[in-house]
Amino acid sequence: MIKNDLFLRALKGEIVDRPPVWMMRQAGRYLPEFMALKEKYDFFTRCQTPELASEITVQPIRRYGMDAAILFSDILVIPQAMNIEVQMKPNFGPYLPNPIRNAQDLEKVIVPDVHDALGYVMDAIAMTKEKLNEEVPLIGFAGSPWTILCYCVEGQGSKSFDKARGFCFTQPEMAHQLLQRITDTTIAYLKAKVAAGVNAVQVFDSWGGMLSPADYQIFSWPYIQQIVNALKDEAPVIVFGKGCWFALKEMANSGASAVGVDWTCSPENARYLTGGKVTLQGNFDPARLLSPPEEIKKMVKQMIDAFGKDKYVANLGHGILPHIPLENAKAFIDAVKSYGA
Amino acid sequence: MIKNDLFLRALKGEIVDRPPVWMMRQAGRYLPEFMALKEKYDFFTRCQTPELASEITVQPIRRYGMDAAILFSDILVIPQAMNIEVQMKPNFGPYLPNPIRNAQDLEKVIVPDVHDALGYVMDAIAMTKEKLNEEVPLIGFAGSPWTILCYCVEGQGSKSFDKARGFCFTQPEMAHQLLQRITDTTIAYLKAKVAAGVNAVQVFDSWGGMLSPADYQIFSWPYIQQIVNALKDEAPVIVFGKGCWFALKEMANSGASAVGVDWTCSPENARYLTGGKVTLQGNFDPARLLSPPEEIKKMVKQMIDAFGKDKYVANLGHGILPHIPLENAKAFIDAVKSYGA
Repeated sequence: MIKNDLFLRALKGEIVDRPPVWMMRQAGRYLPEFMALKEKYDFFTRCQTPELASEITVQPIRRYGMDAAILFSDILVIPQAMNIEVQMKPNFGPYLPNPIRNAQDLEKVIVPDVHDALGYVMDAIAMTKEKLNEEVPLIGFAGSPWTILCYCVEGQGSKSFDKARGFCFTQPEMAHQLLQRITDTTIAYLKAKVAAGVNAVQVFDSWGGMLSPADYQIFSWPYIQQIVNALKDEAPVIVFGKGCWFALKEMANSGASAVGVDWTCSPENARYLTGGKVTLQGNFDPARLLSPPEEIKKMVKQMIDAFGKDKYVANLGHGILPHIPLENAKAFIDAVKSYGA
Repeated sequence: MIKNDLFLRALKGEIVDRPPVWMMRQAGRYLPEFMALKEKYDFFTRCQTPELASEITVQPIRRYGMDAAILFSDILVIPQAMNIEVQMKPNFGPYLPNPIRNAQDLEKVIVPDVHDALGYVMDAIAMTKEKLNEEVPLIGFAGSPWTILCYCVEGQGSKSFDKARGFCFTQPEMAHQLLQRITDTTIAYLKAKVAAGVNAVQVFDSWGGMLSPADYQIFSWPYIQQIVNALKDEAPVIVFGKGCWFALKEMANSGASAVGVDWTCSPENARYLTGGKVTLQGNFDPARLLSPPEEIKKMVKQMIDAFGKDKYVANLGHGILPHIPLENAKAFIDAVKSYGA
């Protein structure tokens, strides 16, 4: 059994002495030990080599002692496994040379056997579990089908993913076919991750906030709900949508164990919109980790006071930024761990 | 007097037969007549030459007959006038080679005499008023001080303006000095625009949605409120913050005549959050103009039904995209103009 089960207890809504804490992208570029590996190995080598992925996963736990680890990987391993080429270009980000724009493009998109196509992830989980030695739980993750579609259609990152939105609005049937294939793959993938040993899963809807509330209910939410339905009896599910304050109610009623909140929604509004019934996770502004450590500590206390210590997982409102000073990340973690002491 | 005063009446909250309509960035790249001038003249030449700026301003009115014109210009003429170099690089966007990062940088930033530094804007207004021949009102605009600071500090566009946010969070006193200088310049600028003939002004807080609600109240809202206070007795003021649903209540209580809403906030939520007391403007998803014209018309009717035809200005939820088909823009305008008929 997991020695520090604070995170899993908070997901169940149990009364705790203090909230658990982890940080989105905690295995990332602000860590010198991560940068050392980044210099030696390219992005997908790090993802696809279990020794590297597991090492990167445990780096932040060793340094800061968060209450949960999250497997180092990327949401774009899913389109890769679905026969869509994905490159990670330095100083540019993801690049998909053959984006999905028409029926012919769509024909090539497969629902793979995830054990074949993504077996390296399961190996990384097994190796990470060994390294973690049951100290803290391990989280697995996937992008939401809508967010994955954004990259598959746009072919790269974008401020507003106009090509992706245009694809959905002009060819909705094709969009739904693609979304369903991504959903089927994601469900199989997350189930395999749970079987391989992750203790919870998180779905990231990074670009859900680009959609109107009405379009969110057409193109994003139904597919996330399918994932929650398929997974919730196997592991706790956390649903996080950046900019998706307008969907917090559906998320709270979905059967997910926890709902992630970004920093543009106040704790009070998040509790109100979710009816107080679900565990919330978030929502420190990642750029606020640039504030001096003493100010960070004060703000973290205010955040926990506002969310309440129970039914709550302290986290950032989005991924940690690359250039955050180590002592500032430490101030964030320490402030949560000493809450109420 | 203005012959078609529907827009001004809606800003006063009067009962109207149908809502007025205009589109943010309506004088823009989806128009072939705009592209023809864009090929001949660079960006700031178009802004700074009254003949060109006025011509571009009236182009969409001639083609579609919107109920208001908005002066062709750019929010970055303000930092330019404040002694901060701004370039507009093709296929890149705004580039400020000497961004404001420290006290020394800040020293060079002046509050200019707007008639000297931005006299070309006033000339463009006079010329536009002649061309409009009192047919429809003319809107003048400025960026919010926070949004202008984002560019001044970051030095270019950005997905998350981390440098700008970091500047504010590590050097708040300097940030407030810069914000105040931008505010003082903007107030003088908008007053001069009103004196030159614009019938309403809009403040664009394009990047307000990057801030947490608490930080919005520190770094953005107080400066917008100063602008509203200074202008509201001279002309109707519209306040628009992209992603700023969390500040709609303050905006509604600010003395502004109207509050802009982006497409991620439903009409129902926008009415609820503003207490039903202020005219609202928005909020059609700009990417939804890629839908077929018949679908656009149906969605426009639904939008107006949801906002209600009074205390309402039909608009997009952000600027029109460059590649929107002409007939789709027409469908949007026509659907509003035929509402209730």
